[in-house]
Amino acid sequence: MRVEIWSDIACPWCYIGKARFEQALAAFPHRDGVEVVHRSFELDPNTPRGTTAPVVEMLAAKYGRTLDEARSMEANVASNAHGEGLGYVLEGRDHGNTFDIHRLLHLAKARGVQDALLDLAYRTNFADERSVFDPEVLIGLAVEAGLDETEARAVLADEDAYADEVRADEREAAELGANAVPFFVLDRRYGVSGGQPAEVFAQALEQAWKDRAPLAPVSGAAEGATCAPDGTCA
Amino acid sequence: MRVEIWSDIACPWCYIGKARFEQALAAFPHRDGVEVVHRSFELDPNTPRGTTAPVVEMLAAKYGRTLDEARSMEANVASNAHGEGLGYVLEGRDHGNTFDIHRLLHLAKARGVQDALLDLAYRTNFADERSVFDPEVLIGLAVEAGLDETEARAVLADEDAYADEVRADEREAAELGANAVPFFVLDRRYGVSGGQPAEVFAQALEQAWKDRAPLAPVSGAAEGATCAPDGTCA
Repeated sequence: MRVEIWSDIACPWCYIGKARFEQALAAFPHRDGVEVVHRSFELDPNTPRGTTAPVVEMLAAKYGRTLDEARSMEANVASNAHGEGLGYVLEGRDHGNTFDIHRLLHLAKARGVQDALLDLAYRTNFADERSVFDPEVLIGLAVEAGLDETEARAVLADEDAYADEVRADEREAAELGANAVPFFVLDRRYGVSGGQPAEVFAQALEQAWKDRAPLAPVSGAAEGATCAPDGTCA
Repeated sequence: MRVEIWSDIACPWCYIGKARFEQALAAFPHRDGVEVVHRSFELDPNTPRGTTAPVVEMLAAKYGRTLDEARSMEANVASNAHGEGLGYVLEGRDHGNTFDIHRLLHLAKARGVQDALLDLAYRTNFADERSVFDPEVLIGLAVEAGLDETEARAVLADEDAYADEVRADEREAAELGANAVPFFVLDRRYGVSGGQPAEVFAQALEQAWKDRAPLAPVSGAAEGATCAPDGTCA
């Protein structure tokens, strides 16, 4: 079974939802038969690349609230994060364009370290004092995740590198009807939207596992030539 | 859409089927939306590791035929290969246990070069004079595919490295009802068995693309907290 997770490292409910999903997966009896794939979704694609703004001020502007009200919104999210054992700093976080981070996450996917880089990016953005929008911080995370520094720098420097992969993920999200994240898709059969409680993810895993359907033949295909596990072909 | 292909580098119909599938995929209008994943299936798991036998003699013994009859079977396969523009040597090929090659292909998958290594292993086994069952030849292919030599050697030397991944692929094949290869699975919805003509793969791609179903909600899941592409969360 395959679970695809569309998310953005700037999305607090993705951060929290990933932890809750992983709790459910760790307790799922068939967890060894579950493959997790992370997919790109830009939370705020219209933010110009290379610029950042403090999160609290951004929230106040977007929602038309006072700074204190925005801080209280952040405190509510933080209490949800703390409930999952996740760190969450209330002041000093940056908001910015995440396209380059998604491109780097696709390099990490190609090198087998995507989940590691995603966890580091979440932790840095939400729990640390460092800005994940600082390219040098990002390179540090890439190296910590196991990427080659020269290769990571080359990808960040080349705006086209892995750009198609980010766009393809976003196009698929749209085709699947996802207009917000996190968005979890189980075997392209079930969709779960949002940073749900772990129990909902547990229920989704059970349901998708139970409902795995037998494969259908393709219309008009006769038996093709195959080789069997005794070494013979027919 | 995702196409999973169970195969073995010792299986001539997998070699031919891969080329035919790729012809169909290259002509498929939605090819950019198709992800291909290779999965392990040992053609002859009971062959002791580290031993090899000439293919023609192995075929004669397995089918109870004369060497000339076995050569004629190989010539028939070769003409199918040549029909796809693939090389195929008629004499001097080895047959052996492919478990270690599958383990190395899983390392290659983790490093993003699985398709390259698979193509090199096929070409070496079927079209070249070299034996893919020679560990030094295999290391050469690994390096040519882009793997780190030290890492590839470490994986070959450690019998447990990626062994679980090979077994998991084989368990999934059995669960999906595949008892011979090549076996193609489209979005876990359609199965195509054998090295079919490219037209059959084209038909399978079209049918699976057309029948992509909308996602179902999970029973009992309320709306979870999400963040939308204007940077706001709810």
